[in-house]
Amino acid sequence: MSAFQPKNPDYRTAATAMFAAQPAMGTLGISIVDLAPGAVELVMPHSAAFTQQNGFIHAGIITAGLDNACGVAAFSLMPREADILTVEFKTTLLAPARGGRFVFKAEVVKPGRTLTFCEARAFAEHEGKTGLIATMTATLMAMLPRNAA
Amino acid sequence: MSAFQPKNPDYRTAATAMFAAQPAMGTLGISIVDLAPGAVELVMPHSAAFTQQNGFIHAGIITAGLDNACGVAAFSLMPREADILTVEFKTTLLAPARGGRFVFKAEVVKPGRTLTFCEARAFAEHEGKTGLIATMTATLMAMLPRNAA
Amino acid sequence: MSAFQPKNPDYRTAATAMFAAQPAMGTLGISIVDLAPGAVELVMPHSAAFTQQNGFIHAGIITAGLDNACGVAAFSLMPREADILTVEFKTTLLAPARGGRFVFKAEVVKPGRTLTFCEARAFAEHEGKTGLIATMTATLMAMLPRNAA
Amino acid sequence: MSAFQPKNPDYRTAATAMFAAQPAMGTLGISIVDLAPGAVELVMPHSAAFTQQNGFIHAGIITAGLDNACGVAAFSLMPREADILTVEFKTTLLAPARGGRFVFKAEVVKPGRTLTFCEARAFAEHEGKTGLIATMTATLMAMLPRNAA
Repeated sequence: MSAFQPKNPDYRTAATAMFAAQPAMGTLGISIVDLAPGAVELVMPHSAAFTQQNGFIHAGIITAGLDNACGVAAFSLMPREADILTVEFKTTLLAPARGGRFVFKAEVVKPGRTLTFCEARAFAEHEGKTGLIATMTATLMAMLPRNAA
Repeated sequence: MSAFQPKNPDYRTAATAMFAAQPAMGTLGISIVDLAPGAVELVMPHSAAFTQQNGFIHAGIITAGLDNACGVAAFSLMPREADILTVEFKTTLLAPARGGRFVFKAEVVKPGRTLTFCEARAFAEHEGKTGLIATMTATLMAMLPRNAA
Repeated sequence: MSAFQPKNPDYRTAATAMFAAQPAMGTLGISIVDLAPGAVELVMPHSAAFTQQNGFIHAGIITAGLDNACGVAAFSLMPREADILTVEFKTTLLAPARGGRFVFKAEVVKPGRTLTFCEARAFAEHEGKTGLIATMTATLMAMLPRNAA
Repeated sequence: MSAFQPKNPDYRTAATAMFAAQPAMGTLGISIVDLAPGAVELVMPHSAAFTQQNGFIHAGIITAGLDNACGVAAFSLMPREADILTVEFKTTLLAPARGGRFVFKAEVVKPGRTLTFCEARAFAEHEGKTGLIATMTATLMAMLPRNAA
């Protein structure tokens, strides 16, 4: 899972700080439970405030968790001075987001100087079982402070 | 924009009710401003609670607006007894989600008995200008009561 | 890789016949090298006729291989009477399609009565090394004879 | 359709030459019928060699046309010294690719120094009617010969 060598020796501090600087993560109750170079696991509790018409968590909220997992995973491999931007993602919804707790796992598939490609999976913990509910593939971009940028 | 003939003559009531039944829309402050068969426009105010590390609205929240616009547009063309499910979507993030108000416009590209395909665009109103910030393409599915399914 | 139970005991014959019935596969020189319920591996030789301006295989041709791998994997889990249709796919191009031989591996992520979700990866064999060059996520649909549909 | 100002005054020659340098386009019989800054239209005849099991053109081949339309549209807005690379695309298949002639129309949604975003539509001409059969959204990247690259 972690064949990647981080460019920033303080990648853990940097990625954690970037995550903590996002008010949306606090509002959604999402937190980091595991972090390695190029891989991350986030968790989110169920919250009725973010459900859709059937009581499941809204697909956009599941996407927020998946996107952020990809962002932290990608950011952990970027140089110290980089900022990060999501270019695009596709979310596939395999099963209803029903459960008490949701887990988002992301891994870098290919890091690059400019673009980093990630994959993520969302799981729901429901009635003692953990099931795959959604997948994401995402493209992320490193924004570097450049003379010419 | 509305070459489509709704199967449900009460499509407006049905789509509005489905939208209103989603707690996530209330939490995010999203509302319907325009609705026609196969086309919808939603608005969302800026909310600091849903921003990322640079003060822009989180991509997952923009996705929630786009996804819901697609859902309402697709649902407006479905028969009365259908429930709706998002199968997958891709979000492309063209510009930072910076502004005081966000608009989500969706249109049905092709309705179908089982699958409906939609496209949506997100706009930010910022300093007196409205700019395109994101696009979505989505696949939605009609869930029909099992006698006919 | 094959936790799936095929509905059609003759899935191998059926999937192989569906593949063989596609003239495009013969034209591109693509063949099946491995097939299990919900998983398949295809190979394609390099062909100068299908390159782009830098001598790499065109992204659309790589996509044809990935899409077909997804199609065969999904089809292997469908009932005997089903026909199959690709609904949508996303291809991410990680590296140039340079090499003498290309491998397409697909797996079903979630089979369903109507929709089946697959993931696939394309590899290039170049100068004695095999490298990941592209990924796909795809949605496929079973077309069933209309009595039951 | 062409609110874009090309950076390369010889964009037409450059885009046409890049297209002509792709053997795959000749093999598939695809040609340019219209080209403006940031917009292009390609055509392809039906060819039995590229069909799938129902006699329709294979989704990968339709994708090759859509991808190339996006590539030419994006390339027409890039500076003279740029090479172009497709990062990712999503193809949605709305209807069978049945017909005597296929048209691929692409437009740039947002050009950028590094990334350009395009949308494309594929149409089939069949029995005197032209119908939308597929859509694509794509991300393309300019490769610039840079001192710092």
